[in-house]
Amino acid sequence: MSFFLTSNKYFGTGNSISNKSRSAGESSHPAPEFLGDSEMETLQGEQAAFEIGVVIHKRVVDEIGNGYGYNCDEVLVDEFRKVGLIVDRVAGLHDEFLKLAAPVETLGQAAAELKLKKRTHIGVDLQFEWDEADAFIRQADGSLFSWCERFRCYNHMIYGIVNNGESAVALKFNDRTFNWEPGESLMWKLETEAIVKELFPIHDETKRKLLLKRWALNLWDLTNQPIDEIHAYYGTKIATYFAFLGMYTKWLFFPAVFGLILQLVDFGSLQLLALPFFFICITSWAVLFFQFWKRKNSTLLARWQISYSAGSESGYKYMDTEWSSFHSSVGSVRTCGGNKGKEHEKFQREEWFGRMMRFRNDAIIILSIICLQLPFELAYAHLYESIGSDVVKFGLTAGYLFAIQYFTQIGGKVSVKLIKDEKNKNSEYRANSLVYKVFGLYFMQSYIGILYHAVLHRNFMTLRQVIIQRLIISEVLENLMENSLPYVKYSYRKYRAIRHKRKREKGYAAGKHYFNSRVEKEYFKPIYAASIGDELEDGLFDDFLELALQFGMIMMFACAFPPAFAFAALNNITEIRADALKILVMFRRPVPRVDATIGAWLNIFQFLIVVSICTNCALLVCLYDREGKWNISPGLAAILIMEHVLLLIKFGFSRIVPEEPDWVKANRMKNATQAQNMCSKQLLRNISGGRGMLVKAH
Amino acid sequence: MSFFLTSNKYFGTGNSISNKSRSAGESSHPAPEFLGDSEMETLQGEQAAFEIGVVIHKRVVDEIGNGYGYNCDEVLVDEFRKVGLIVDRVAGLHDEFLKLAAPVETLGQAAAELKLKKRTHIGVDLQFEWDEADAFIRQADGSLFSWCERFRCYNHMIYGIVNNGESAVALKFNDRTFNWEPGESLMWKLETEAIVKELFPIHDETKRKLLLKRWALNLWDLTNQPIDEIHAYYGTKIATYFAFLGMYTKWLFFPAVFGLILQLVDFGSLQLLALPFFFICITSWAVLFFQFWKRKNSTLLARWQISYSAGSESGYKYMDTEWSSFHSSVGSVRTCGGNKGKEHEKFQREEWFGRMMRFRNDAIIILSIICLQLPFELAYAHLYESIGSDVVKFGLTAGYLFAIQYFTQIGGKVSVKLIKDEKNKNSEYRANSLVYKVFGLYFMQSYIGILYHAVLHRNFMTLRQVIIQRLIISEVLENLMENSLPYVKYSYRKYRAIRHKRKREKGYAAGKHYFNSRVEKEYFKPIYAASIGDELEDGLFDDFLELALQFGMIMMFACAFPPAFAFAALNNITEIRADALKILVMFRRPVPRVDATIGAWLNIFQFLIVVSICTNCALLVCLYDREGKWNISPGLAAILIMEHVLLLIKFGFSRIVPEEPDWVKANRMKNATQAQNMCSKQLLRNISGGRGMLVKAH
Repeated sequence: MSFFLTSNKYFGTGNSISNKSRSAGESSHPAPEFLGDSEMETLQGEQAAFEIGVVIHKRVVDEIGNGYGYNCDEVLVDEFRKVGLIVDRVAGLHDEFLKLAAPVETLGQAAAELKLKKRTHIGVDLQFEWDEADAFIRQADGSLFSWCERFRCYNHMIYGIVNNGESAVALKFNDRTFNWEPGESLMWKLETEAIVKELFPIHDETKRKLLLKRWALNLWDLTNQPIDEIHAYYGTKIATYFAFLGMYTKWLFFPAVFGLILQLVDFGSLQLLALPFFFICITSWAVLFFQFWKRKNSTLLARWQISYSAGSESGYKYMDTEWSSFHSSVGSVRTCGGNKGKEHEKFQREEWFGRMMRFRNDAIIILSIICLQLPFELAYAHLYESIGSDVVKFGLTAGYLFAIQYFTQIGGKVSVKLIKDEKNKNSEYRANSLVYKVFGLYFMQSYIGILYHAVLHRNFMTLRQVIIQRLIISEVLENLMENSLPYVKYSYRKYRAIRHKRKREKGYAAGKHYFNSRVEKEYFKPIYAASIGDELEDGLFDDFLELALQFGMIMMFACAFPPAFAFAALNNITEIRADALKILVMFRRPVPRVDATIGAWLNIFQFLIVVSICTNCALLVCLYDREGKWNISPGLAAILIMEHVLLLIKFGFSRIVPEEPDWVKANRMKNATQAQNMCSKQLLRNISGGRGMLVKAH
Repeated sequence: MSFFLTSNKYFGTGNSISNKSRSAGESSHPAPEFLGDSEMETLQGEQAAFEIGVVIHKRVVDEIGNGYGYNCDEVLVDEFRKVGLIVDRVAGLHDEFLKLAAPVETLGQAAAELKLKKRTHIGVDLQFEWDEADAFIRQADGSLFSWCERFRCYNHMIYGIVNNGESAVALKFNDRTFNWEPGESLMWKLETEAIVKELFPIHDETKRKLLLKRWALNLWDLTNQPIDEIHAYYGTKIATYFAFLGMYTKWLFFPAVFGLILQLVDFGSLQLLALPFFFICITSWAVLFFQFWKRKNSTLLARWQISYSAGSESGYKYMDTEWSSFHSSVGSVRTCGGNKGKEHEKFQREEWFGRMMRFRNDAIIILSIICLQLPFELAYAHLYESIGSDVVKFGLTAGYLFAIQYFTQIGGKVSVKLIKDEKNKNSEYRANSLVYKVFGLYFMQSYIGILYHAVLHRNFMTLRQVIIQRLIISEVLENLMENSLPYVKYSYRKYRAIRHKRKREKGYAAGKHYFNSRVEKEYFKPIYAASIGDELEDGLFDDFLELALQFGMIMMFACAFPPAFAFAALNNITEIRADALKILVMFRRPVPRVDATIGAWLNIFQFLIVVSICTNCALLVCLYDREGKWNISPGLAAILIMEHVLLLIKFGFSRIVPEEPDWVKANRMKNATQAQNMCSKQLLRNISGGRGMLVKAH
């Protein structure tokens, strides 16, 4: 009885809207075959561009009306429209696509529901309220919400559609029927029923084309990039990567020129001093570069109105998205209220337990790298040393490079599993933890063989050969893989889809008009994902890894082969455009990430600088000690090794013990958020109402 | 005409109050000679203890009524009472003392006028309002304001007394007459006229005696101290010093025992390995100690309700006291408003200019240390090496130790002058800058001679002798100086005062009752000031310096003389009580300082750890290389030196370039304060009114 009532109620409202919307949809889509899709988008793009694509299985048209209940795709579209989204249905080869756009009012509503914190004109981040929208700072391109924020709002709206009725709604799809229970999210239901296949952000064609012209194909700008536009289109994390890549490449010009001069000019009697001088310049250069990068990063964040104070990074993260999760773990503490001593003890216990877990995991990774990977690498290096023919050598290297791909993939999977045990505070922490662990693998892989040639065999010719090979092979291979593999994948998926379609509709006309919907093309493109698994990191992992390995290669063996900097500079200039092209053309639009720094990579780069100081010293000893005059006795060597171990302890221990106890941090965070929540509304009214007064007052 | 009117008005109100107050003063002080001063204080101490003493010249009683105008001491007392202070007049030998106490209402009024930020129950710091006093957290001892806050309030009230009338008030003192102009501060006026001699915080006798019993004379507690009570009585900075000293001494037990074992036990064949093992343990110990100290410091700050987030130290300082000064320098920027680009450029220019100035000053200091001090020190070390007789050696050392006192005093004066050129953001920055510079002098002075013995002459016997001498001499000398010098000064001043008095009042009865006022005794005590000048630092400078030099001595030569740690531990146990005694008995109560960490000293300690790694390595090489087998060739030595220079660059350069541009920081600070000011009142009402609701809501 009650079921009928609710479904009737649903029918009563839902149907009228669905009629209206369908007619609207049809009128805006008079004939997809005649009017190109892109023209349609630009027409509607004036108000709000389509930014999210939902892939659903195509309904077999013949079976409409059969079965009991509503067609779930129509219900989905209706519900989307009820929420305030603009929906565009596009039929693909054998899937159907819903393109979603949201007017700013709809986004504002969702942002207010999400209690999104946004920067206001007085510079404080406050909870968004639609009525006070004027109080909030707009993006550089004039829109109220950044792409990160929009994406969060879309997600909230799409997954927030629940059955508000009192009883289940019967939905049918082709000849299947199932119930949409009260309180259940429609999207989750349809995803578990495998009707909605995927949800992905889609490109905004006008902006993409503009970026393509101004950024990816603007080859003569060398290292200049339209960072603000990249930020507006791709979000903070990707823009930060490209800003870093650009600045790094620009700074590389100095050591590149210096290295080339050192290689080409003969300094006569000063030749012996030239290398150490180069070494000192390079180290200073690297240290200064990273300091200036940190400055630039904080400048960028200030420009993008992201509050992220240097030093208290955790603060930012708690405040924004991840506070709730941290809060829940603190929840139990707050209920017990009074006795503060116990509270602190519990925090201390949890803190040290988490630290022990992380330490255990790190130990596992480090031990397995030393016990499993090191012998393998040394064996390869030894083989390479003993083989005479150049061709065989090249083949061995190529084979080895392919072999280690599997090695690292296994390592990455193991790391991901280990990290799941860790109680890391949020997803960015987890991602950083993964980066450290996986980089350990790559570090061993990339450098140990070269060090073997350099230090044990003092074979500088092989060393230089290996460096050149690695730089060239890695450049060529990486760029090929990066840009061709996605295209191959895309082509394969396209080909398979067309073949499927042909099979089903044998005898129909040629498939020329199959491919006029861009959504489907994008759907066939691969995701911008990391090679080690897409759970914690996206494609930026590979891009940063490439940069870090290159940086390590040129820094650690700077004294053995100074012109490597020139190779790297050239490589990076092409890399900027290649990465831009890749992200604009080859991949789907990536999901935006909140993180606003280069994160763990900064520490890795700085670690590489310290390592490079040691390796270069060893190289110089080897270089100038050809005659064996300066034989180092075992005692002296032991003391030197000890000194370096101690320096490591000095700088490593500081990381093991955090400066601030967790409970102090938690208290601080709790206080800060509480205050902001309390005075949020009051402040808003003051700001939007009395802005004139404020200005006068000062 | 108008002058008369105003003075009449003043007379009309002022006289009645002055009559009332005088009678009150007399009734509360029936006969200073009969009723002991201390009993009086305990009687009134129930409400508010006397905490500030004002020293004024004694009025010659005979001349009352002569001259034109009001007696300025009476006007001062009247004005104090009008503000709400409790005033107690005490006649001294040839000065008169006003003891001031403030009821909590008066303090609250002043705090509200000062817009003092205080921690509230929801954990945020808000501007104090007397009506909402319940919203603010009380101190551990139940009082509303901490000693730091009370001192600021006193200062505000005392210097805030201005002539509110329209014309000048004529004041007379003895036979001098002068005008108190409208809008002029009475205290400033009286200070420039040399009538008010001094203003200083006075001891609260009950609390002082309690502390004396529980802290300074509680010898069996070893390293335990009542830190919270010290904090309540002396403020944050001094409590932090004693907390650090206590924790350091506690941690010293481990290396002390280890060092003694190493000295006393013969390890046989393992003897060769024992020293390097000791060295590694000591370094790890030191690094861990400072990490745990940072944790402890942040725990203490959380307990004392001081908001000071690790990493963003500057943030705290701007927010609290020094924002206004920073603000004023930004003021010009804000007026030009719109064009942000120029604003940033100006900030950048100022930032780099300030940095250049500091760099120049540092260069001057470093160069003068190397060019002037180094030869002197080496000459002394060489003399010491070449002299045979032990007695002459001891004499030379003692003479040298006295000679360098002048050297450092000159260095300190030069540093202070240089720092005045620097545009440091606040007084604590300036103090830190001074600490770094002066420590450079002391570092050279303390260690270069010892290094000379160790490395150049490989004379380990002399080295050990020098270390023992320095540790014992410095301990004995320092403690003697610390505790006897103030007493000598005090006795001299007392003696002179009594003699003066006797001279003036020849023939009067014996001076037994002269000395019953404790205020005067305190006035004769010396100020707790730094030996290098009292402008930027107080006595804590010397205490920290002593600790740092001791730490450097035991760490840098750990391998040459392991039992030094035991000496240091013993020394520090006595040091804790000696310093407590000194600060409680020997000196005036120090002016409280806001700073909440050990500041520059932390960096100095960590620098000493790094230096100690290098010196110990050098010592080990010398120790194990008696036979000269491991001769280091010049080439290898050069490369090793280069490596260390590079490591220095790596960690030094990071300090030269700040991570966050000044304008970003300024923006952040501006925003934070603006927001807090705006929502302050609203929040307060919520907190004090709706605290019950808040608790329920969670």
